Amino acid sequence: MSTRYFGAAVPRLEDPRLLTGRGTYVDDIVLPGMLHAVFLRSSVAHGRIRSLDPSAALSMPGIRAVYAMADFVSFGSGPMPTMAPHPLLKSPITCSPLAVDEVRYVGEAIAMVLADSRAEAEDALAAIELDIEHLPVVANARQGIADGAPRAHSGRDSNVIATLRGSHGNVDAVFAAAAHRFSETFEIHRGGCHAMECRGVVAAPEPRSGELSLWTSSQSPYMVRRHLATYLGRDEADIRVTAPDVGGGFGPKANVYPEEFAVALAALACGHPVKWIEDRQEHFLATTQQRDQFWSLEVACDAAGRMLGVRGRCIHDNGAYAPYGLILPATALASFPGPYALAAFDLSIDVVLTNLVPTTPVRGAGRPNAAFVLERLADTIARRLNLPREEVRRRSFVRAEQMPYVTGGKMRDGSPVAYDSGDYAKALSLVVDKIDAAGFEERRAEAATRGRLLGLGFASCVEDTGLGPFEGASVRVTPAGKVVVATGAASQGQGHATTLAQIAADALGVDLSQVTVKAADSRIFPLGISTIASRVAVTAGSSVEIAARKVRDKAIKVAAHILEAGEHDLEIENGQVRVVGVPDMNVPLSTIARVLSGSAGVPIPAGVEPDLAATGYFEANQLAFAYGSQACEVEIDPETGDTRITRYVVAHDCGRLINPLIVDGQIRGGVVHGIGNALFEHMRHDEAGQPLTATYADYLLPGAAEMPDIEIHHIETPSPRNPIGAKGAGEGGTIPAVACVISAIQDALGPAAPFITMHPVSPEQIVEWIDQTRK
Amino acid sequence: MSTRYFGAAVPRLEDPRLLTGRGTYVDDIVLPGMLHAVFLRSSVAHGRIRSLDPSAALSMPGIRAVYAMADFVSFGSGPMPTMAPHPLLKSPITCSPLAVDEVRYVGEAIAMVLADSRAEAEDALAAIELDIEHLPVVANARQGIADGAPRAHSGRDSNVIATLRGSHGNVDAVFAAAAHRFSETFEIHRGGCHAMECRGVVAAPEPRSGELSLWTSSQSPYMVRRHLATYLGRDEADIRVTAPDVGGGFGPKANVYPEEFAVALAALACGHPVKWIEDRQEHFLATTQQRDQFWSLEVACDAAGRMLGVRGRCIHDNGAYAPYGLILPATALASFPGPYALAAFDLSIDVVLTNLVPTTPVRGAGRPNAAFVLERLADTIARRLNLPREEVRRRSFVRAEQMPYVTGGKMRDGSPVAYDSGDYAKALSLVVDKIDAAGFEERRAEAATRGRLLGLGFASCVEDTGLGPFEGASVRVTPAGKVVVATGAASQGQGHATTLAQIAADALGVDLSQVTVKAADSRIFPLGISTIASRVAVTAGSSVEIAARKVRDKAIKVAAHILEAGEHDLEIENGQVRVVGVPDMNVPLSTIARVLSGSAGVPIPAGVEPDLAATGYFEANQLAFAYGSQACEVEIDPETGDTRITRYVVAHDCGRLINPLIVDGQIRGGVVHGIGNALFEHMRHDEAGQPLTATYADYLLPGAAEMPDIEIHHIETPSPRNPIGAKGAGEGGTIPAVACVISAIQDALGPAAPFITMHPVSPEQIVEWIDQTRK
Repeated sequence: MSTRYFGAAVPRLEDPRLLTGRGTYVDDIVLPGMLHAVFLRSSVAHGRIRSLDPSAALSMPGIRAVYAMADFVSFGSGPMPTMAPHPLLKSPITCSPLAVDEVRYVGEAIAMVLADSRAEAEDALAAIELDIEHLPVVANARQGIADGAPRAHSGRDSNVIATLRGSHGNVDAVFAAAAHRFSETFEIHRGGCHAMECRGVVAAPEPRSGELSLWTSSQSPYMVRRHLATYLGRDEADIRVTAPDVGGGFGPKANVYPEEFAVALAALACGHPVKWIEDRQEHFLATTQQRDQFWSLEVACDAAGRMLGVRGRCIHDNGAYAPYGLILPATALASFPGPYALAAFDLSIDVVLTNLVPTTPVRGAGRPNAAFVLERLADTIARRLNLPREEVRRRSFVRAEQMPYVTGGKMRDGSPVAYDSGDYAKALSLVVDKIDAAGFEERRAEAATRGRLLGLGFASCVEDTGLGPFEGASVRVTPAGKVVVATGAASQGQGHATTLAQIAADALGVDLSQVTVKAADSRIFPLGISTIASRVAVTAGSSVEIAARKVRDKAIKVAAHILEAGEHDLEIENGQVRVVGVPDMNVPLSTIARVLSGSAGVPIPAGVEPDLAATGYFEANQLAFAYGSQACEVEIDPETGDTRITRYVVAHDCGRLINPLIVDGQIRGGVVHGIGNALFEHMRHDEAGQPLTATYADYLLPGAAEMPDIEIHHIETPSPRNPIGAKGAGEGGTIPAVACVISAIQDALGPAAPFITMHPVSPEQIVEWIDQTRK
Repeated sequence: MSTRYFGAAVPRLEDPRLLTGRGTYVDDIVLPGMLHAVFLRSSVAHGRIRSLDPSAALSMPGIRAVYAMADFVSFGSGPMPTMAPHPLLKSPITCSPLAVDEVRYVGEAIAMVLADSRAEAEDALAAIELDIEHLPVVANARQGIADGAPRAHSGRDSNVIATLRGSHGNVDAVFAAAAHRFSETFEIHRGGCHAMECRGVVAAPEPRSGELSLWTSSQSPYMVRRHLATYLGRDEADIRVTAPDVGGGFGPKANVYPEEFAVALAALACGHPVKWIEDRQEHFLATTQQRDQFWSLEVACDAAGRMLGVRGRCIHDNGAYAPYGLILPATALASFPGPYALAAFDLSIDVVLTNLVPTTPVRGAGRPNAAFVLERLADTIARRLNLPREEVRRRSFVRAEQMPYVTGGKMRDGSPVAYDSGDYAKALSLVVDKIDAAGFEERRAEAATRGRLLGLGFASCVEDTGLGPFEGASVRVTPAGKVVVATGAASQGQGHATTLAQIAADALGVDLSQVTVKAADSRIFPLGISTIASRVAVTAGSSVEIAARKVRDKAIKVAAHILEAGEHDLEIENGQVRVVGVPDMNVPLSTIARVLSGSAGVPIPAGVEPDLAATGYFEANQLAFAYGSQACEVEIDPETGDTRITRYVVAHDCGRLINPLIVDGQIRGGVVHGIGNALFEHMRHDEAGQPLTATYADYLLPGAAEMPDIEIHHIETPSPRNPIGAKGAGEGGTIPAVACVISAIQDALGPAAPFITMHPVSPEQIVEWIDQTRK
């Protein structure tokens, strides 16, 4: 097989289209007779709806309907589905598409207005008379778990919906025998996600066919279809779902949302296409967020600082509902023991309901939280035993020669975790070397002359990628000799149109420009799972390889017939099948495609089916484990607390790279996400559950000016668990980044400063710590 | 396999939808910003365009554009493609989408007006100033072939574009040795076709994707796509084509039309969706028609009246262009020797251009013409030798024990004709018996007492059906346990949604109501050939069987895994896979579908691909030969010539019947078509090529009042050439019907009447013949 493109840093094929405004996002879908929807949302965090009177709104110009949930009863009713059911959740803990009786967070949708224009619909919102009785509010998870706390859902016995536990080995024995034991508590704050494109949905009933078409800015369009079909009592086959161009996903768009169902219900109820486009204000209020977590942990190590065991507990804020089941806390739990060969661990997570917007996976999906606490524990050991932080890690890592390594942990589905391949110590050594750790003290001294505090940080992680059950693709050669790849895997900007094309182009010996990738339209490809969990390169990528190989075999069979040559004497290059060593004896793929479409005036060879096309599925029965280390250097202005990241080095191993340019972009974006979590992003609420940071004036996102140059080094240990040797790259940049930045800040503040156990850390906080240190 | 549905006369699944106005025809396609097109058509049969001035039209309200061909130059130019190229046609003899310089029939499109509404566009037509120079006209084929005739195309050497020849055996020797030789000349008149729905096209450029969507009322949507792609210099993959519900095809809608290209070009030129709906007037002028043919033939027979050989020549009117190549005359030629075991034949057809609308296949596609002349020759022998007409046929038929029988003829592709199976004499005996030929003279005598002339007629035919290269289908079981069949074979009312569903329902053991058939949308199924040549039951039907069998095998494999049973112990019934003899041990297909879509929470068994679906293609390497005989009785009022068909019996063998109700409908409709050709339909033109019969006041179609009850008997000789044993049924009703009716009229008029050598025969003509007889 040619590897002309696999591994090459080719520019993204989709960029000319996307960057010149030729993308088709949900808001670009315009249908005849389409109405525009806006949602009336709860302004209280917990309350009971006493009455809703739409009559004044209905009389306003352009208003076609005001719907509450009761208006949809003939199409569907009841709570939203749980995306990923968990045995500990006996019944769904979800809202209705529109609230019935009780509202449980500020922003929960109560009613919707349909109008000829968005502006008319928004104007009418204020005219709906809504009477809500205030109920006691659970404003955070620690409050929610306390004795005598109010209930986030009236009538529930407890705000704790599940306690997850993960353990391995005899943790008591390990702790008893350990040379040292250190305890720490950690606090990780709630944040948002903030894709460039907010959410959007268009639903269109097709009265003639009885079908329903749905366009949604989703990472999981086929999941939306499946659950919506169940909700509506319809066959999936009667719902067409498309995720068109989507401007960023990062996790929250993997959720199935009440608005998606409400828009579909409204379209069925009114018989018109209905469009809803989330504005940024709604995004702050109603798109799922990252979690507050409170960890109480103890780590055991031997005299040399080698980590032996971890135990403790986490209180996890799940927000007002559990639309995604327990995936986020379960993933945090399954992320232990990370890259460390622990003899034992025992962790539990209490999953708590609060009256805040629900939390679901955001890039890393709980893994950054686990990495933060694990890496802080490693730093604790180093600090307490006065060891280099790198040394604690090196002594604790799973070693390359131990691969495949069974950690003792369990995946979310209960299967044992077995790392497939990699050299964790090598990644750490690489960043230590590349950031010039050896020269750091010299740089620190120089900075001190300028009144600046310099700090160096490290962090490592391992990540399960390529989650099952499968993705699939079809590959077709057109009569023009072009290649069309279709897959169920939706893209939100990850560059699938390029990476999947690279795989197909190599397998079929065609120029990359000849390959088009179409995705996430149930009319174009029948099945899809989701673009989550760093899984698409592994699963969809492998499925393209499998399908393209079938097409290649078919092309060679036809060419052998036409050229009267043996199949083994043929190669596929430059858009042709040709006799090895006799390039003039060739048949273009376009000719073979025309033969197989019955249009070449040549009979189809016996034993070959028409259509130069094939479908392939990759079924991921085992995960591929990516890993990496990061190092950074920060420079702090002790007067203002302003923290500049001056160096950032990443070593990452995601197996064989399909496209280094795209992987680098994923890593870089992931690191930026982590830096945001470390320094800026903090979604705050007051005691009444009212959001305090619902604009970009109050909620800080990292901007280009705050970002360092990020130097990226790849180790390529192919995964033996898929045909292309890939591991996922979408989250590996984020997972250790917070830990890395916090470690560097800690280092900058010096050994006298308090041990940092929370994030994000604000300039004010840093100044306070410096003041404490100086006291 | 269950045969619960195969062979059962189940009501058509599509009828409730179609009969309650829920069909989606091209005119039901409404798109945002859509413009309406009308065509400026030539009012002269042959002329040169001197000038065209659209300025007055352009200033009228609602007018968006007036286009001539020159306006499309950046999108496409040149003549239309030839649907079926023939080696004798060196270059296409086709028009441009809009005429350039010369027009060659009344109705040829010259320009098009695009407006906000159809009415505005029509109003503006008259304001276009068009100056055309008249050129000499070829108004019929005999005129066209005469020495010194004008040329239908200025500058062509000859109006004869090809002379086709078909021969077998030593015809001179056979004729020399024959006991008798009889000569006749025949004249078959031009007719229309007149599907209930006229043609229609919607084209929509998709500016964001660069794709073009086309909806067209076509029998050959994938052919339209292929040729349009070539014309536009695009990849087929960039054109989506859909044939939505179509109200009748019958042949003319298999052609690729200038309007289809012009609408597509206009949509690209203006950037809007464009709709054109043909009105009935345009249908008379611009939809392709049936042919004038003039035959000079000689038949040789032995002393017992057994047909030994046929020789002669045909002059075939191809109209102004040859958009369909030479398929129509070639099919007429390939229809010899029909059901007769001829020792030799030698026939040639001169294909002649005239200044009339082009002729292309209409139901039977030249076979009714061949059957008419062959059957009239059989009647000639009977008349001259005073033998029963049935007896001449019985003595001449290919016999059952001769099957498979190589006729000596050649198919259109040059391959030898080999009849697969059947008993031609049995079909004739059946109709002779069922029409009560034995009691006929008694009935004739009774009619004579009422002053009426009674006549009995017979005719037989054999028909090549199931034309290659292939059709394909996908079959998918949805998570609700429903079955979706998708195929490229377009339906124009033939009931594919029922017959294809029957095949799938049997293979998968599901209730017929659970099966949906989707067809003729390139987004839903990638390849398709055409709904022509009585081929869909054989080709698409077999492909559904193949695909459904694959799905069945897959379901059984998964069920075996779930039930921990051997695959051979399982059967598929009632929507379940179950253990034979232990019906409680079962898995519903819906569960298997959910397992294979990854949504059942159960792993997919090893070695099974996701998706309970499969694609199958049936490649028709050999044809399946249907055959049959018809008998009818006519009663003529000698005063008026009014001819009533009082009895009509059909014996038909199209192999295994999928649905007798639908086959009977096909046969019945086919006979009606033939009766129209025998008695009513005659498209007349004057010497200037002006149509004289371009309204239903002048052009007669058979109505319900004119139609007899048609008694249909099936012989079921399975074809060994496809997995379902089917033969085509779409044209078998038509092919012998004209010959049958004319034979009966001849019989009614008595031995003294002139031998009838033409059709249709009008009441006036019959009165004239009666007058001649009485002289």
